[in-house]
Amino acid sequence: MKEHEEYISQNIKRFDNTLVEFLQIPSVSAQPEHKKDIRAACEFLRNYLSRIGFSPRIIETPGHPILYAEHLKAEGKPTTLIYGHYDVQPVDPIHLWDSPPFIPVIKDGIIYARGAADDKGQLMAHVHALETFMHNGGELPINVKLVFEGEEEIASLHLDEFIEKNQEMLKSDLAIISDTAQFGKDMPALTYGLRGIAPCEVKVIGPNRDLHSGSYGGAVANPITVLCSMIAKLHDNDNRIAVDGFYDDVMPIQDWEREEFAKLPFDEMAYKRDLEVNELLGEKGYTTLERKWARPTLDCNGIFGGYMGEGQKTVLPSWAGCKITMRLVPKMDPVKVCDLLEAYLKQIAPPSVRVEVTKVSGAPAAIVSRDNPIMQAAEKALEYGFGRKPFWIREGGSIPTVNTFKELLGVDTILLGLCQPDCNAHSPNEFFGLDDFHRGIRSAVVLYKELSEMKV
Amino acid sequence: MKEHEEYISQNIKRFDNTLVEFLQIPSVSAQPEHKKDIRAACEFLRNYLSRIGFSPRIIETPGHPILYAEHLKAEGKPTTLIYGHYDVQPVDPIHLWDSPPFIPVIKDGIIYARGAADDKGQLMAHVHALETFMHNGGELPINVKLVFEGEEEIASLHLDEFIEKNQEMLKSDLAIISDTAQFGKDMPALTYGLRGIAPCEVKVIGPNRDLHSGSYGGAVANPITVLCSMIAKLHDNDNRIAVDGFYDDVMPIQDWEREEFAKLPFDEMAYKRDLEVNELLGEKGYTTLERKWARPTLDCNGIFGGYMGEGQKTVLPSWAGCKITMRLVPKMDPVKVCDLLEAYLKQIAPPSVRVEVTKVSGAPAAIVSRDNPIMQAAEKALEYGFGRKPFWIREGGSIPTVNTFKELLGVDTILLGLCQPDCNAHSPNEFFGLDDFHRGIRSAVVLYKELSEMKV
Repeated sequence: MKEHEEYISQNIKRFDNTLVEFLQIPSVSAQPEHKKDIRAACEFLRNYLSRIGFSPRIIETPGHPILYAEHLKAEGKPTTLIYGHYDVQPVDPIHLWDSPPFIPVIKDGIIYARGAADDKGQLMAHVHALETFMHNGGELPINVKLVFEGEEEIASLHLDEFIEKNQEMLKSDLAIISDTAQFGKDMPALTYGLRGIAPCEVKVIGPNRDLHSGSYGGAVANPITVLCSMIAKLHDNDNRIAVDGFYDDVMPIQDWEREEFAKLPFDEMAYKRDLEVNELLGEKGYTTLERKWARPTLDCNGIFGGYMGEGQKTVLPSWAGCKITMRLVPKMDPVKVCDLLEAYLKQIAPPSVRVEVTKVSGAPAAIVSRDNPIMQAAEKALEYGFGRKPFWIREGGSIPTVNTFKELLGVDTILLGLCQPDCNAHSPNEFFGLDDFHRGIRSAVVLYKELSEMKV
Repeated sequence: MKEHEEYISQNIKRFDNTLVEFLQIPSVSAQPEHKKDIRAACEFLRNYLSRIGFSPRIIETPGHPILYAEHLKAEGKPTTLIYGHYDVQPVDPIHLWDSPPFIPVIKDGIIYARGAADDKGQLMAHVHALETFMHNGGELPINVKLVFEGEEEIASLHLDEFIEKNQEMLKSDLAIISDTAQFGKDMPALTYGLRGIAPCEVKVIGPNRDLHSGSYGGAVANPITVLCSMIAKLHDNDNRIAVDGFYDDVMPIQDWEREEFAKLPFDEMAYKRDLEVNELLGEKGYTTLERKWARPTLDCNGIFGGYMGEGQKTVLPSWAGCKITMRLVPKMDPVKVCDLLEAYLKQIAPPSVRVEVTKVSGAPAAIVSRDNPIMQAAEKALEYGFGRKPFWIREGGSIPTVNTFKELLGVDTILLGLCQPDCNAHSPNEFFGLDDFHRGIRSAVVLYKELSEMKV
């Protein structure tokens, strides 16, 4: 490791400067006027990777291109897909930025710019880790396949198609994504689980037209009231989901997880203050972290019906609807869960209305076992890079790319999150600590080494 | 009465033709391009009233003018305000009309045109009844004050102001409005009660911003779910309103009313078929007519919160809201009822949310006692005109003008409804039966005579 440390130390200033240069490219994927900038960012990466010994290829898609590169000389060693994205979020509201989003500013060891944390900085940590091995014709301890896309901020529009078409080329033993966060400042974390998602839309239909609430009020069931009564019955008094069979397949939280989560310095008071709520609320018998990371939930994302404009319109509406997403834990099947919800809703609906449920395709949860050698390698890597053992955490949201890798390539993903959870990823004044950037480079170096010990 | 009958018979063809002429004027108050037509309709009425012996005045308002005329020569006799409106609804969707809305067509004794029933035909029934007395310098048996407005279809924007400013001029003993319907074909009805209205808007506020339903789902109460649970608690299992004290002031339905309503040929099957609902639903212990006419109700007119657009946006929303109107029966105070609702909502709200209730000004119910001499006069009038005793009915909606007359002039209103309940008042192919038109003229003649017997 000494040799690698030396290289990193000698080049660290240059690494910082390279990141600054990369961040100057306004590669906003959502805005057509930045199409050229997206390509410039892709070419920047291609050129850099070429310099350190790759033969990268820009692969066109109907949208923004994907940069692909591989280095497959470590015979008998694991092959790792390393994913990142070079596109960034739009900058609005621009007036809330303390400095221009594409003129990176370094202040107190922190670099401020759009894309600093999400994901250019984290992506470059891997590039520099690779470079640390490969400079002067050196060899990597593992085989790598790099996939850097330009459409992550616009729902990875063409990534699935690319992966599906190139399954043979992308065949790997695992994947690494650095596009998540630590638990907090100096609190490195290994995210080993993500929740899945099962979305659907519900419509409750009453009379065939909007009625005058004076002339008809009292004569027929109001679809809004009926929908509300049904939504009220989706949770019981303990805030458990009341849908029959909902918990049948749920993977219970393990004892070690409860212990691990309990160790985390989660400040409920600060959390409440941040959200300006009087109380936190969720399923009885679980802590807040358990509830949002490792227990399934059901939320209405939207509700609508009748007159929603300014002032009064005294209708008894024909229908009311809502959008629901359920967040799933491992072993739950998104299709089955939507079917259960539909059956339950139709069962509790009164005869006065008709219920329509439109199911949207979801995704299962993702989890990697603590005993999986890739996670052991990741733990050691973070411990080296950050100087302390990482926390084992889960995340309540989904990362579609992780599901794609699992489904199409059959691989688990290491989520090596390097930035801070409050890094303003999609907001003004996005930042990335240079200390975290450097720790990330060192962690990645150790990760590749550790992975090379793995039997394949 | 013989003399009046003769005059009506001799002139009936001319009355029909006058109505056709009046209906040819496209006096759509909502559309600025018809401003001139509105005035033309007002002038048409002025000219006709002048010919039969009135000295009408066009009174300007910031909007469309009000036509006022009086005849006050029946000393010691009651003074009646007769209200009508000469403006009409827009004609869209125009392609659903079987004939052009402003080219009246008479088919099988029915006149089809915009405004035929609402309200030109009903208004002209009174004009011709007045003419029946006044032609050739004849005298009216009562004193009358005619108020014909041009803004009824745009919420009577300037009527209240006009009445408020001219209370002395408009001083009367009662009012008559012919702008409602019979109960059905050949089923004349006397509407003696209207429900009041108490509107408000409710907002349930949770976290200070929309949250990611994956990252936060399970941690905090969802304002949509909370609002729904609260709405679900607004009615009990018997569909009674669960707000504490809500029924305290309610005027109970009288035995004679239940008997009267039960006599009505109300076809529940046809009603369900028309609305395409499987069942009718309302407060336990009451029939459908009782529920919508004589019992208070509470309806959500609209509900909204979170993401309401196409597709998915997986937010746990910051707030959710709804619009509520309560329909009131006599003795209930709209302000008190809103206060009770607010108190109840705040009482049942969990500590996880904040509840805001915005109260909008409402109106009390209106009812005229069956024993009131004006209602006795009206009953006799309809019996003469239609050849059978009218049903005594109530109506679930409100008529703001009736409330204005009560509040500002202290008078009760006879609702002498002449058209059919399915007359397409605001829809394509609006119609008015010429038989009902003629019966209306005769009823009005008898009404004025009967009212002249009343002591004042």
